[in-house]
Amino acid sequence: MNVPQTAALNRRFVLTQHTQPDAEPTPAVWKLETVPVPEAGPGQVLLRTLWLSLDPYMRVRLNDADTYMPSVKKGEVMVGGTVSRVEASNHPDYQVGDLVHSYAGWQDYMISDGSDIIIKLPAGAPHPSWYLGALGMPGFTAWHALMNIGKPKAGETFVVAAATGAVGQIIGQLAKQAGLRTVGIAGGQKKCDYATGELGFDVCVDHRAKDFPAQLKAACPKGIDIYMENVGGPVFDAVMPLLKEFARVPVCGLISHYSGGGMEGADRLPGFMAQTLFKRLKVEGFIIFDAYPEHHANFQQHARPLVEGGQVKVREHIIDELESAPQGLIDLLKGDNFGKVVVRVGA
Amino acid sequence: MNVPQTAALNRRFVLTQHTQPDAEPTPAVWKLETVPVPEAGPGQVLLRTLWLSLDPYMRVRLNDADTYMPSVKKGEVMVGGTVSRVEASNHPDYQVGDLVHSYAGWQDYMISDGSDIIIKLPAGAPHPSWYLGALGMPGFTAWHALMNIGKPKAGETFVVAAATGAVGQIIGQLAKQAGLRTVGIAGGQKKCDYATGELGFDVCVDHRAKDFPAQLKAACPKGIDIYMENVGGPVFDAVMPLLKEFARVPVCGLISHYSGGGMEGADRLPGFMAQTLFKRLKVEGFIIFDAYPEHHANFQQHARPLVEGGQVKVREHIIDELESAPQGLIDLLKGDNFGKVVVRVGA
Repeated sequence: MNVPQTAALNRRFVLTQHTQPDAEPTPAVWKLETVPVPEAGPGQVLLRTLWLSLDPYMRVRLNDADTYMPSVKKGEVMVGGTVSRVEASNHPDYQVGDLVHSYAGWQDYMISDGSDIIIKLPAGAPHPSWYLGALGMPGFTAWHALMNIGKPKAGETFVVAAATGAVGQIIGQLAKQAGLRTVGIAGGQKKCDYATGELGFDVCVDHRAKDFPAQLKAACPKGIDIYMENVGGPVFDAVMPLLKEFARVPVCGLISHYSGGGMEGADRLPGFMAQTLFKRLKVEGFIIFDAYPEHHANFQQHARPLVEGGQVKVREHIIDELESAPQGLIDLLKGDNFGKVVVRVGA
Repeated sequence: MNVPQTAALNRRFVLTQHTQPDAEPTPAVWKLETVPVPEAGPGQVLLRTLWLSLDPYMRVRLNDADTYMPSVKKGEVMVGGTVSRVEASNHPDYQVGDLVHSYAGWQDYMISDGSDIIIKLPAGAPHPSWYLGALGMPGFTAWHALMNIGKPKAGETFVVAAATGAVGQIIGQLAKQAGLRTVGIAGGQKKCDYATGELGFDVCVDHRAKDFPAQLKAACPKGIDIYMENVGGPVFDAVMPLLKEFARVPVCGLISHYSGGGMEGADRLPGFMAQTLFKRLKVEGFIIFDAYPEHHANFQQHARPLVEGGQVKVREHIIDELESAPQGLIDLLKGDNFGKVVVRVGA
């Protein structure tokens, strides 16, 4: 099936099966179907998807059991952040042609009463897809973790994994602007070169290197003050001994655990708790969706001029066509992306 | 050797050997020796120990390697908090007869220039030994963990282990006063009865019970908002699934890990980090010694009227004679104490 976006049909991916917590999703998890385009009723708008965001959090929503968010149920449209254009409006706040960021999911059209619209894009926003990345949820995640949990002080050392990913690329640049030594971790020389050459990281260490822990240690001669935890697994093992007293560890993701990935061998929890005590660590999990009411406007005010002015660079990994979304997410979960993954769904 | 406290000799316990991190200390760790009483020079005072505090943190200072505090070196006097009387003074701030709280260690006499004196006790303080417990470091630990890290809200559920211990007994009563449901954990029926009958815990669960996790769950029908972590080990395993979203976990001690005590079996760290993320936990290690400059005066102002007025009850486990200190600490580390352990060294 290869159906382009039209004004007549709504293509959508619905869930056909859940994924075991220790397994990787396959393309058979979703089914592409087409249904009629819905019509906007009183007080509603019809949204047409232009861009769809693919993000690591989607993995946990494929599980059967609810975690911090309900799982996607079988037969439901797969969730996802989108930038859409208003095609029809019976809502006083939205005009035909407006661009909005909401969570329309993996489909061409959605009806909205406005309550699920996160933000109306500024008129003439030069890169609408950036509102799924640097100026959207990943950028907000980066900003909130750094500013409100990490509380950076100039001269400190900051480390983040997946340094060229959606969150890593932004938080690394924001940390650099705050006067920190920034150390990225990425998979492969190409990403590392980009991290230091384009994103301004002071050092980037390849986690595939055999002597990765030693390289990371050498990159952080004074230890680590802020570690943005978004991967878990062996990377965290290398980070832990380098954490300094009073280090802050915002925890926004554990991509290496989403499909199994528990470590073999000894129980590391007692050692971790001892480090937490002895080094007075502050380890704080957060889900960015909680932070919108209090902090999102501040983020937009701070980040928009930096991103649109080019002081914070953006790298996107653009996938063409909604039909490629399943494989795009599967690749993302393996780390095969290079930059913030967005799907160009329509125009 | 059985030498009482005199004006002529300074009895002191010095370290003769370190203890392996996974071993329990034995009496052979210390040697009791007697030396002449030192003399106060210009600007100095001579302190005579009345009360010595025994506390879990002492265990880590017996290791060979430094942790968050330097280890006690062989031949050095064993560390410990004390209440002492000024016997001679060449210091303008201290008069003969004043009582002070400092860290004179396991000995009868110490020379001080005042810089190591934490506090001068109020004249006529009715229970000087309380300045080693409810009004000293353990009470300050309880207050700081609850107020500044736990940030309690009325109606929330609070849990602490070692509920009748030096920290547990105080934090439980402070939490109750703040309007929280308080659940203690203790070893044995006698301690549990005391926790509910005298200390005002709503429930106390015996961690030796075979169905301890089920009992704890039943005691926390709405889950746990604040867990004061001071033991680690299997108790934490029972607590973890009960932690609510946005729960706070101040980590002030890990007594079950101090002498080995790593858990057999699977690696629990990935599960813990997933909980941290999904439930947005805030896990914060702290060492109370860091908090003195900023918070100690507030603590004294808040706690002194409560403790001296009887709204916060104090249970002490009094050991007679300095010579019993080694066995007293060994027993404390096994949980064989019942209340805050203090040694009556002199008079």
